[in-house]
Amino acid sequence: MAFTTNATISAFGGRFLKLTHQSASTSTPMNLTLFLPGAASATTPAPLLVYLSGLTCSPDNVTEKGFLHAHAAPLGLALLFPDTSPRGTDLPGEHDAWDFGSAASFYVDARTDPWRRHYRMETYLTQELPRLLFESFAELDRGRVSISGHSMGGHGALTLFLKKPGMYRSVSAWAPIANPSRCPWGEKAFGGYLGDDREEWKRHDATELVKGWKGPLNCLVDVGTGDNFYKQGQLLPESFEKAVEEAGIEGVNVRYQEGYDHSYFFISTFGEDHVRHAAKALGLL
Amino acid sequence: MAFTTNATISAFGGRFLKLTHQSASTSTPMNLTLFLPGAASATTPAPLLVYLSGLTCSPDNVTEKGFLHAHAAPLGLALLFPDTSPRGTDLPGEHDAWDFGSAASFYVDARTDPWRRHYRMETYLTQELPRLLFESFAELDRGRVSISGHSMGGHGALTLFLKKPGMYRSVSAWAPIANPSRCPWGEKAFGGYLGDDREEWKRHDATELVKGWKGPLNCLVDVGTGDNFYKQGQLLPESFEKAVEEAGIEGVNVRYQEGYDHSYFFISTFGEDHVRHAAKALGLL
Repeated sequence: MAFTTNATISAFGGRFLKLTHQSASTSTPMNLTLFLPGAASATTPAPLLVYLSGLTCSPDNVTEKGFLHAHAAPLGLALLFPDTSPRGTDLPGEHDAWDFGSAASFYVDARTDPWRRHYRMETYLTQELPRLLFESFAELDRGRVSISGHSMGGHGALTLFLKKPGMYRSVSAWAPIANPSRCPWGEKAFGGYLGDDREEWKRHDATELVKGWKGPLNCLVDVGTGDNFYKQGQLLPESFEKAVEEAGIEGVNVRYQEGYDHSYFFISTFGEDHVRHAAKALGLL
Repeated sequence: MAFTTNATISAFGGRFLKLTHQSASTSTPMNLTLFLPGAASATTPAPLLVYLSGLTCSPDNVTEKGFLHAHAAPLGLALLFPDTSPRGTDLPGEHDAWDFGSAASFYVDARTDPWRRHYRMETYLTQELPRLLFESFAELDRGRVSISGHSMGGHGALTLFLKKPGMYRSVSAWAPIANPSRCPWGEKAFGGYLGDDREEWKRHDATELVKGWKGPLNCLVDVGTGDNFYKQGQLLPESFEKAVEEAGIEGVNVRYQEGYDHSYFFISTFGEDHVRHAAKALGLL
């Protein structure tokens, strides 16, 4: 077993496993939480919904406040909550700001020093972590995976889905940073992790990536109209919508939820819809 | 309006109000959270389920992690989360231990100095707070109220229900401190707040109070068998069950949930059952 189990918690007939392992991709320990529904077993393995968290979060926030497991458990859907960055390093400036460095990886493989040695989240999430998980947990069905995320994690979910056709059956996002090349959070993060070449940025921006997508896109997005980060222009879902429309892509459902904010109250309120969106794509509904 | 609204948060089609007011009972400011379902209005006022929190908690814990509102919202049930003690005072020793003083009121009216001036939670919860709430919120139905709680709050819910026949339509508790006169937490709290007279303690102990109950008792209790506080003898639900049985009281349903702990994961897993237990008694089901 590649993972150390730090806690096992019963919930909704299943169990949360708080796990740690040493990552070859990031050369650091990595934390994650896995929810296994009660029905999951080696003979009836559960499909998996990956949820990527937003800035400042660890896997604990969504575990405690997202309530996705309440909806996933009766459907027989497993959940994976990876961390938002490597931990345990102390690179210059890594812990100085809440929107860059620790808990703010933006889920890319960094190209600049000192980040490129450890901040390799794309490789970690799309190669190393699924390989180790499916090797270690026979209760998981490696052939059926979807992805979702919130805010920075919504950016991560959309971009990983678009970069890796066929890896995920569906994608959904709450309040995603949908056009990071053109918002303050994204400019800071991409400049820091990727350098000054804005052509490179396009390869990690959902609004740019979607322009090259072929076929329908199984995508649900929710944005709260009371979300201050939306109002401040950090999310830019309209840019993503416009790119989708201009590319003539079908299947994208962007919803604006009146009065909702950026918090886990927003995430949990629409959690059932996102879980069911994934469950449908994964053959559970 | 007696209350100051510190935050309004949209969730599940309703809204949380984080409120503060100056209490005449405690001579301190008091915090509380109120959840109003979307259907509540002055013409269709919502019945109310009071939830009393456990040791160390504020109203925020259950608001963020209890998930009771997810089940209450579609039923049209309002929720009230009072605080676990007065705040803002600095009595000798008040903040030294997590099981006595601040966030550990045990929901009694203290009889000893220095506590009796401020720690008047029974009067606050059964007289002042409902009066102010129903005066201020026409969306609430003063004639339909139930009570519930967790751990110390389960003790509070059971004892207030038993002390005030007719005030609440039903009671439920997760992992209640069911016989505080005979467990370390209760002995410390009752000794501190009530003094050395163990006859007085009996007037605040659910297992003692239930012996005098007449008629059926509309009561649901859940206890996790993996709960370390249960294993350590802090909860003693069997004492309560034995008293109920010996008194020949019907309607009490005590369930032991295999493997569940004392946490909000336990509370939220069985939250729907407790919400529906109250909703049924309140005429919503």
